[in-house]
Amino acid sequence: MTSPRDQTDSDASEMPELVILKLGGSVITDKDRPETLDSAALEAAASAIARRLDGSLRRLVVIHGGGSFGHHHASAHGVTTDTGTSHPDAILDIHGAMTTLNRSVLDRLHAEGVPALPVHPLSVGARARDGEFTMPAAAVRGMLREGFVPVLHGDGVVHTGEGVTVLSGDELVVSLADELGAGRVGVCSTVPGVLDGEEVIPEISSFEAVADLLGESASTDVSGGMAGKIRQLLSLEAPAQVFGPDRLDAFLAGQQPGTCVR
Amino acid sequence: MTSPRDQTDSDASEMPELVILKLGGSVITDKDRPETLDSAALEAAASAIARRLDGSLRRLVVIHGGGSFGHHHASAHGVTTDTGTSHPDAILDIHGAMTTLNRSVLDRLHAEGVPALPVHPLSVGARARDGEFTMPAAAVRGMLREGFVPVLHGDGVVHTGEGVTVLSGDELVVSLADELGAGRVGVCSTVPGVLDGEEVIPEISSFEAVADLLGESASTDVSGGMAGKIRQLLSLEAPAQVFGPDRLDAFLAGQQPGTCVR
Repeated sequence: MTSPRDQTDSDASEMPELVILKLGGSVITDKDRPETLDSAALEAAASAIARRLDGSLRRLVVIHGGGSFGHHHASAHGVTTDTGTSHPDAILDIHGAMTTLNRSVLDRLHAEGVPALPVHPLSVGARARDGEFTMPAAAVRGMLREGFVPVLHGDGVVHTGEGVTVLSGDELVVSLADELGAGRVGVCSTVPGVLDGEEVIPEISSFEAVADLLGESASTDVSGGMAGKIRQLLSLEAPAQVFGPDRLDAFLAGQQPGTCVR
Repeated sequence: MTSPRDQTDSDASEMPELVILKLGGSVITDKDRPETLDSAALEAAASAIARRLDGSLRRLVVIHGGGSFGHHHASAHGVTTDTGTSHPDAILDIHGAMTTLNRSVLDRLHAEGVPALPVHPLSVGARARDGEFTMPAAAVRGMLREGFVPVLHGDGVVHTGEGVTVLSGDELVVSLADELGAGRVGVCSTVPGVLDGEEVIPEISSFEAVADLLGESASTDVSGGMAGKIRQLLSLEAPAQVFGPDRLDAFLAGQQPGTCVR
C-alpha cells in the first residue's frame, strides 16, 4: 500500500480517485430541535467512513450540512443564500453554530481513527455580486496530499454588496467536485433517493424530467431542499448518487445506491 | 464619507490605504500561564482600534500571535514551523487553542463596535515541501470590500511531506502584506521597538546592522522571537513599525512609533 504522504506533487491521473461525500444536515442532526445532534446516525456514518477508508477508498472530502445548527440561526437573522447581513453578531451566530457542529463531526471521525481536519468556508471563499461562489482549494488539496480527510460545512460566506450570505453544503459539493476533479460524488440524505411515489428513480439526467416530483423539504431549510440539490448535481462533471444513510457503506465501497444524477 | 460597501471591484489605487496590524501573542496573553488572556491589554487594543477605525483608518487586517494559547501545545507535541505532525488530535489541540483565543479577540472587538470576522489559516493556506507558505486571500479581500475587519492568527498549516506544521503570525504578516498590497504594517510587541541598550533604534534597513543586538525571547516561542520578526519584516515592500502597546493608538493614527523596518 502506498501511503498518501508519498503522493506529493504528482500528476492527478496517478492519484487514487477522489470521492466527495455530503452528509445531509438532516441526517446527522435532529432538524426540528435546535442544535441537537443525531448521535447514533453520526456515529454510524463515521464508522462506515473509517471501515472503507482503509480499503479501496483513499482520498475523501466530507461536507456536512447545517441541519438544526445553522438553519435556525440563519432564519432568525433573515439571512439566505442571496440576502445577507453586515452584523458581526448575526454572522458569528451562524458560523459559530456550524463550527460547533463541525467539531462534533470531527470528534466522531477521530474516535473511529479517521484523520479528519476542519475547513471553514467563511475563511476561504467568497461570492461575487451575482452570487457566484468561488473557493481557492490550496488547503484542501494540501490536506488530501498529506493523507488527511478535509471536513467542510455549510457556513456564512462574504458576498459582494450583501455583507455575508448563507453558503449551502450543496453549493460546496458542486464547487469542490469540479475544482478538485472528483471521480464520484455521494449525497447522503434522509430519503433513499429521488422518489416517484414509493419507487426510487434509478437515474436522472435532466431537471425537467423530474420537476413535478420534487417538492420542498418540510423543515426549515434555507438552501432549497431536494429540487435545489438535483439542479446543482446535474451541473457536475462527475456522477452523483443520492441515497439514504443505510446505503452509505455501499456508496463508499464503490456501488451506486439510490438515484444516480449525471 | 464613502462606505467601504461601495468599493466593490474597483482598482486598488482608488481604495483607502490598507493597514496590517500584528498584535503579539505576548501582548494579549499572559505568555507564562497556559491559555490565559491579558484582558486589560486586549481591551485597550480593541478600544484603540475602534477609536481609529471611524477616522482616517478605513481598511484594516488584524493578525494575532499565539502567546500562551498556541505555543505550549505546539511545544508539547514537538511541532515547529518545520517539523510537523500527522496526528489529528495534536493538530486540533494547537488549532483549537488558537481558535479559542481568536474568538476572545473577536468578542472584545465586537464589544467595541468593530465589525471583525474570523479567518482561520489552517482552512486556507498551505506550505510547499521547502516550507514556503502561500495563502489565497479571496475571503480576506471580500471581507475588506464589505467593510469588515478580518482577524487572522498563528495556526497549524498543512505542509507537504510534514503533515501539519506551525504557521507563525509573523509569517502571515509577510504573506498578506505583499499579497494584499498593504500600505503600512504595524507589529505591536511587548517592547517599545528594537533596542540598543535602553535606546529604541529608529530605523533598521539591514539584518547585519542589528544582528548582535537581537537575542531570543525568554518565553517559549516556536516562531523565532525578535530576530525572526526583523528578518521577515525586512523582506516586505511596505514599511513596518515595531512598537509597544502604549503606542498602538499613535500607529493607527498614522504616526511612526518605535522602530521602522524597511
